Amino acid sequence: MASLRNAAIAFIASLPCRALASNIIDNNASPPNLSTVFNNSIFYTWRPRSHVLPPSGQIGDPCMHYTDPTTGLFHIGYLHNGAAGAKTSDLITWTDVAEDPTFIRAGGINDPVAVFDGSVIPYGINGTPTLLYTSVSYLPIQWTVPYTKGSETQSLAVTYDGGANFTKLEEGPVIPGPPFPVTNVTGFRDPYVFQSPQLDAAAISPEGTWYSVISGGIHGQGPSQFLFRQYDADFRDWEYLGEWWREEANSSWGDGTWAGRWGFNFEVGNVFALDTEGYNAEGEVFTTLGAEWSEVPIIPQVSQFREMLWAAGNITTSSNGSVHFDPTMAGKLDWGQWAYAAAGKLLPANSSTSTSSGTANDRFISYLWLTNNNFGTSAFPTMPQGWNSVLTTTRELAQGTIGNVIDNELVNETASWRVGSRDTATRTVELITLRQTIAREIRAAFVSNATRTFSQSGRSVSNSTSSYSNSNASSLAFQQSPISKFFMMTASIAFSSSARGSGDLKAGFKILGSEYESTAIYYQFSNESLIVDRSNSSAAALTTPGLLANNEAGRLRLFDIANGSNSSSIETLNLTIVVDNSVVEIFANDRFVLSTWIWSWYDESTQISFYHEGSGDVSFGNVTVYEGLVDAWPERVY
Amino acid sequence: MASLRNAAIAFIASLPCRALASNIIDNNASPPNLSTVFNNSIFYTWRPRSHVLPPSGQIGDPCMHYTDPTTGLFHIGYLHNGAAGAKTSDLITWTDVAEDPTFIRAGGINDPVAVFDGSVIPYGINGTPTLLYTSVSYLPIQWTVPYTKGSETQSLAVTYDGGANFTKLEEGPVIPGPPFPVTNVTGFRDPYVFQSPQLDAAAISPEGTWYSVISGGIHGQGPSQFLFRQYDADFRDWEYLGEWWREEANSSWGDGTWAGRWGFNFEVGNVFALDTEGYNAEGEVFTTLGAEWSEVPIIPQVSQFREMLWAAGNITTSSNGSVHFDPTMAGKLDWGQWAYAAAGKLLPANSSTSTSSGTANDRFISYLWLTNNNFGTSAFPTMPQGWNSVLTTTRELAQGTIGNVIDNELVNETASWRVGSRDTATRTVELITLRQTIAREIRAAFVSNATRTFSQSGRSVSNSTSSYSNSNASSLAFQQSPISKFFMMTASIAFSSSARGSGDLKAGFKILGSEYESTAIYYQFSNESLIVDRSNSSAAALTTPGLLANNEAGRLRLFDIANGSNSSSIETLNLTIVVDNSVVEIFANDRFVLSTWIWSWYDESTQISFYHEGSGDVSFGNVTVYEGLVDAWPERVY
Repeated sequence: MASLRNAAIAFIASLPCRALASNIIDNNASPPNLSTVFNNSIFYTWRPRSHVLPPSGQIGDPCMHYTDPTTGLFHIGYLHNGAAGAKTSDLITWTDVAEDPTFIRAGGINDPVAVFDGSVIPYGINGTPTLLYTSVSYLPIQWTVPYTKGSETQSLAVTYDGGANFTKLEEGPVIPGPPFPVTNVTGFRDPYVFQSPQLDAAAISPEGTWYSVISGGIHGQGPSQFLFRQYDADFRDWEYLGEWWREEANSSWGDGTWAGRWGFNFEVGNVFALDTEGYNAEGEVFTTLGAEWSEVPIIPQVSQFREMLWAAGNITTSSNGSVHFDPTMAGKLDWGQWAYAAAGKLLPANSSTSTSSGTANDRFISYLWLTNNNFGTSAFPTMPQGWNSVLTTTRELAQGTIGNVIDNELVNETASWRVGSRDTATRTVELITLRQTIAREIRAAFVSNATRTFSQSGRSVSNSTSSYSNSNASSLAFQQSPISKFFMMTASIAFSSSARGSGDLKAGFKILGSEYESTAIYYQFSNESLIVDRSNSSAAALTTPGLLANNEAGRLRLFDIANGSNSSSIETLNLTIVVDNSVVEIFANDRFVLSTWIWSWYDESTQISFYHEGSGDVSFGNVTVYEGLVDAWPERVY
Repeated sequence: MASLRNAAIAFIASLPCRALASNIIDNNASPPNLSTVFNNSIFYTWRPRSHVLPPSGQIGDPCMHYTDPTTGLFHIGYLHNGAAGAKTSDLITWTDVAEDPTFIRAGGINDPVAVFDGSVIPYGINGTPTLLYTSVSYLPIQWTVPYTKGSETQSLAVTYDGGANFTKLEEGPVIPGPPFPVTNVTGFRDPYVFQSPQLDAAAISPEGTWYSVISGGIHGQGPSQFLFRQYDADFRDWEYLGEWWREEANSSWGDGTWAGRWGFNFEVGNVFALDTEGYNAEGEVFTTLGAEWSEVPIIPQVSQFREMLWAAGNITTSSNGSVHFDPTMAGKLDWGQWAYAAAGKLLPANSSTSTSSGTANDRFISYLWLTNNNFGTSAFPTMPQGWNSVLTTTRELAQGTIGNVIDNELVNETASWRVGSRDTATRTVELITLRQTIAREIRAAFVSNATRTFSQSGRSVSNSTSSYSNSNASSLAFQQSPISKFFMMTASIAFSSSARGSGDLKAGFKILGSEYESTAIYYQFSNESLIVDRSNSSAAALTTPGLLANNEAGRLRLFDIANGSNSSSIETLNLTIVVDNSVVEIFANDRFVLSTWIWSWYDESTQISFYHEGSGDVSFGNVTVYEGLVDAWPERVY
């Protein structure tokens, strides 16, 4: 990392007209108030290496991904001065689509004010990648205020230069608004195009028809996905098929434990179908979606909460011919409170990354936006940092299965899983859920590319009673820790059956630690939660407003798994933690993800420890650290 | 007129930086090529006194009229750098709504390219005059080329300052386009708002609901009026009720004799209801409309012909609840080929002009655009003239009746009249048609305001055989003629029954005559036409391109009228001719209008003559000339 640090210093030194002396940040000394330092002076302090973000400045929602039909390269898109993009042949390293990666900007006739999220038909108009996006004419737009009619319309743009630019069609919006009598919407944006033989059958459409869901809702009714169907070969007209999915305003899936609230407005809805291998148009229909809500009283122009959800369900047809999406399970796509606006895309088996990695099946990969400044509401020093927010590591989504699960009360809930099959003889079930894993190429690269790889021997702990907050007795440092803040760590934690009755058991790891800072990541049985304790994560949080220090938490149920005749044990917790400087992503059991920021300050804050508290037997194992990650942007000049 | 001429010279002399010597136009000498003279140097040559036109520059379609609910003044609107307007308390004199009379301009979010026609709800949003107009985002727009989706949308603007400005609402178009599946339109513009208890009943709407027809058509199908219904108190949403009227592409009413072709695209449709007194919401439903067409092969971006039509009909409701307009008669609102784009409005009995003139009933008044340069296709010297086009004299529209008409073959036709009642005893019918007359206030003012009024004794002529083209034997100059080109003339021409069999009978008047120029206006029995022979109208036409010299013609049937037991005579032709310098409007029998331009050059070309040719007995009578007209713009400074 010395070279990176040196490069950073060189970069800062190259900036004109600045009093540089006071701007060389020393991460071995206590931090200043970072709001007061010059722009870009902490550019490298927390910048990740392996993640997608623009060369500088702000990144917003991911969107507009596609596999270029002529090159086979996968193109990722994201909001950035409009929308910008990068391309990859392996999902590991990226090339900006141009020196200025922005490929579409606001300011046209349809979008005088802004460009919002969209999605791409790879073989679109004249066989060329064709973008359907939200063209914005009036602001403000939010579910908390009356809707300005026509503020969000859906327009087309086409690329003629391999994705460096998308040229807007010289015509009005192809979807100028929700058709009458849908008038008082809470939102009407983020068109997501997809094909679905299941919808073709349900809605009696020609084979290969393109659909678009537009996310939003109706004031006084609830959030919904508006469904449209392609009408002509050039995507100029779209037939409204109705709200194929609507939830009651501010209702929840079950009691809200597993998927939070549906809120008042949906955003960024994706629709796709999965089998256990990945994308399969004939598979189970999934959707990912953002939900917006506030506690009462609702304050205009303040959306307090955003939830990044997924749901799976059935497509049904009413007697009047209208099609509906009926959820059978729903969950959190990410439990991190700053992880939002997921955008995924079919990655076909014939894409260059799949052919290089020997992946024979179609996949569905997805990215979330991880906001640096709490959706623009915190005082995070974005200008001193010179960049703002990031996309999460590429994930593969698939239909997940959990086998040999004891058919007890833990199984039967309105939850983020459903019972796929039930074996009354063995009294076990197979559960179906959403599987989420780091894209295989990336995970492989993190392993193979590691500059240091080391294992930590396991550890079994019983009935620790010391308090985490008052001493370190509950933690035990690894024999070896990373020397940088760039690594992937895998580990498993097995709990004895007694753990389920424990009221105070916590078990996990502390990372990014030193005598000044550390972050505990642990599973807490009493509320089936995986918690990230960020209260001591950052010395800079003490000096700098906007470095929020609140905890993160997500819910994960560890089922009872049959392991022989009439015997069972608690499902092992399998963790993969990616630490890419300040970006920390926790993957658990291929079905739980929590992405967050850890703004550790000191260079020396790289230690890892076991962490255990409360009563209950815990066994840590399979601990491996792969240090280094990859440089996702080898062609960028800094 | 000397003072006007002097004022003109003074005006021209006041213009800066011009070589004035060569620009004093002498209308006593032969004309130069007027295309070559300086801008504005023939500003007064053909400028009318009594008509509506802006202070300078171009006028387009009339539209956006209303009676101001707070002042009772009638506001006229017209396209002019956007749209501009003037107000009146008497329909005779006008005041521009502001020094710059433009009250709405293109360039907003909804109308970056242009503002097209609209109409006003007098008690609109918050009780304020509210304009629904066509906001234009993309050009070109014409029925001869594929439609650019979203090029024409309908938006709202409100006046807060008594009509000097209309402020656009900060929201998208309230009608963003024709709803799916109406996609491939030939046009979608000129929203005309109206109320109709008859439509309320047919469409099951609340009392007082506002409707809007939007004119256009569908490629491959035909021209139509799209009908919308107000959905909310603020006119933000409009419910589409379908094409309430569609005609087959390029079809005609009957054989086309009386109303020309429906063409391929409708424009400027108005909908209103009339009784014999004027406007009556419960009366017979009428529409005025423009129809566009070309001869095959249709050349892209060339609409060869425009027809300004009217139709009356019944409102019916289909079994599926959709409402329809079914014409029972149709005709030409004006036979002048340059008279187009009529826009009318209810003039309520409580408007200031009606209360001043003692008019107790609601009226419907209408204006047409009279284009100077053949819809922009001729080389008329508009820049030397400094203004371009005019609106026609205010007309009152009402249900017209023709009584005691012999029930013979002349009556039974698909025509611009219908049989209202039939008396089998007397073998007569009462015909119903559209009545069109000069607004009563204006006609009265032309009479009372005349600086010279003189009558010409009548004349009976038999079997003249001399040729008009070879000699003047067929014409006889009036004993007295106007000394200016500003007058109204009334006259009647009675034909003996033998006239109907004559193959060559022509009878009428020559006006604007001198040894160099004159214009014959005559009725020709062989084809039941009223013809304006413009071949010798203008000496300037010989020197200047764009002063078209083609004839104008309109069709007028003179019925057989019962005048005693078993006796009948041909209906007398009653003419009113308004000559306002170059603007000539011919009104016949309260049901025929032909408006045109006569660009007579010489000051001395003011003579009137009787004109008669061919075989047939003709009796001229009731000839009176009211010279002077009125100055419609007393507050303008030139």
